[in-house]
Amino acid sequence: MYKASVRVTLRSSILDPQGKTTHHALENLGFERVERVRIGKFVEMWIDERTQEDAERMARAACEQLLANPVMEDFEISVEEG
Amino acid sequence: MYKASVRVTLRSSILDPQGKTTHHALENLGFERVERVRIGKFVEMWIDERTQEDAERMARAACEQLLANPVMEDFEISVEEG
Repeated sequence: MYKASVRVTLRSSILDPQGKTTHHALENLGFERVERVRIGKFVEMWIDERTQEDAERMARAACEQLLANPVMEDFEISVEEG
Repeated sequence: MYKASVRVTLRSSILDPQGKTTHHALENLGFERVERVRIGKFVEMWIDERTQEDAERMARAACEQLLANPVMEDFEISVEEG
């Protein structure tokens, strides 16, 4: 069994209203040294494949077909035994 | 300037309907070897602090005060120059 951890982030050219709102909330709490906030998704998948390469290939296909919007989002995958 | 990357995940005892729905959608697409899916948040913060330790301390305080729900969620922080 492998565990794939996927970070899905908005491309930098795409506005991020959720990140802006969080940034303002942090400023109101006194976190004035936070300059910028971006919010993305973190997806964990447990994959029953025989090799780490197969698990990574499956995770990449899942991102391309479902988890990430190719127009607006980028993704990064890391796979470990688990 | 430092960049803090925060992974906010639901505790394993907490139901994750979004993860369940994503799991079913992946099964319907033919990803039958995916056993389990959990969905969390991925927050990136750019922090104008003098040292990496200060940036990490600020990111941890932001998680405790705003970004994570201490009853339902765990968080992990990594900080790098950026």
